[in-house]
Amino acid sequence: MLSKAQIKYIKSLRTQKYRLESRAFIAEGEKIACEWLSTKEPITHIVALESWLRQHDTLLKNHPEASIYEIDEATLLSISSLKSSQSALLVAKMPKPPLIFPQNGWSIALDRLQDPGNMGTIIRIADWFGISSIVCSPHCVDIYNPKVVQAAMGGHLRVQFLEADLEKYFEETSLPIYAAVLNGENLYQSQKSKDGVLLIGNESQGLTPNLVKLATNRVSIPRFGGAESLNAAVATGIICSHLIQH
Amino acid sequence: MLSKAQIKYIKSLRTQKYRLESRAFIAEGEKIACEWLSTKEPITHIVALESWLRQHDTLLKNHPEASIYEIDEATLLSISSLKSSQSALLVAKMPKPPLIFPQNGWSIALDRLQDPGNMGTIIRIADWFGISSIVCSPHCVDIYNPKVVQAAMGGHLRVQFLEADLEKYFEETSLPIYAAVLNGENLYQSQKSKDGVLLIGNESQGLTPNLVKLATNRVSIPRFGGAESLNAAVATGIICSHLIQH
Repeated sequence: MLSKAQIKYIKSLRTQKYRLESRAFIAEGEKIACEWLSTKEPITHIVALESWLRQHDTLLKNHPEASIYEIDEATLLSISSLKSSQSALLVAKMPKPPLIFPQNGWSIALDRLQDPGNMGTIIRIADWFGISSIVCSPHCVDIYNPKVVQAAMGGHLRVQFLEADLEKYFEETSLPIYAAVLNGENLYQSQKSKDGVLLIGNESQGLTPNLVKLATNRVSIPRFGGAESLNAAVATGIICSHLIQH
Repeated sequence: MLSKAQIKYIKSLRTQKYRLESRAFIAEGEKIACEWLSTKEPITHIVALESWLRQHDTLLKNHPEASIYEIDEATLLSISSLKSSQSALLVAKMPKPPLIFPQNGWSIALDRLQDPGNMGTIIRIADWFGISSIVCSPHCVDIYNPKVVQAAMGGHLRVQFLEADLEKYFEETSLPIYAAVLNGENLYQSQKSKDGVLLIGNESQGLTPNLVKLATNRVSIPRFGGAESLNAAVATGIICSHLIQH
């Protein structure tokens, strides 16, 4: 059974400060829990309904390092940071970030992205298009925020993350840098590329002007209707689908 | 000043039942309020901070039909269905839905779409690409849910909505119907079209098999990484950007 101290610990992981202290985060929901368990990523706690534990017996054997706790639905919901009831919650350890900037293939650079749903959705997009790295500027929403982990649908398991000064990255890399802007080159007429960095800005303020200056290309999704802008994650998906050459 | 009864009325509009009863809904946030006020759409209540009212004096004159209420920040936040504090909230009247199904140009058909963020984002995508109509099956999230209105960023003002049995629509229309599925024709090799219906399914269950049967085309976004699927709104954006011929 989970002790009060353990419940307190798991709940504390809703806050970035405590996540950083223990280098751990929450991964919730049946599907996401299964994805995590089927890898070798280190897990410290598996908290789930009795029926779920029974059903996933084989997966659990993959993780002898984890403590397993059977829990009732009401208690699980009280620990969860999600609104709807789930059947399983894991505490996983954060992998060490890579030591060097991505220098080949495609990566996504995020400038002060704020919304956890957008961050998670962009991780899922990277995961879909086979983009191996996401570089986050300071002041982005934490990639281990429970809502981000939820929206990324297991993307954390296949995408690498780095927090860094984007100016420094752009000065160091020879990859083409594509800034998503409102008045750039028509995306539909842009050349596809085998590698590059896609630079996406803050939801309401867009990109920091200095970063746009460092970009080698500025691309825009042509607009045919009345909307002022597109959602940041939708724009990321559309640009990836047009620019990445596989 | 807003009376207690008026506060109760505005709060009641968080619920679909009361929205339908009064054929009214909430549009919140500075930007969205300005978009609404700059149209001739009927508004019954304008509730805002004194500074905001002063600043938007000219816009307010567009709407002599509306009652204007000055409010303090704390009270506005307590009425609001959003988490962050805003400076303005409107109560607007729902327009009458069109009497006939869209029969030319592009429309989007949604099969039991559940998430308000996705619905709002899809409305914003339709608005960006100049898609004039969205047809919702029964059991979609209500398009006048405050979170939908927020995420649509004014898209309600330019996109028409219809709730209908999609089978009936598909049997009646001669437009090509493109179902977004996981194992269909490669989107990147699909012919663009000047008109059509893009059919998008429920976030976890996908499309109703009968609807897929009625579709003339089944399209898929090629996958190059490990993700099982893309977010519904992101998929909508990507397909629109590849299929719509302008």
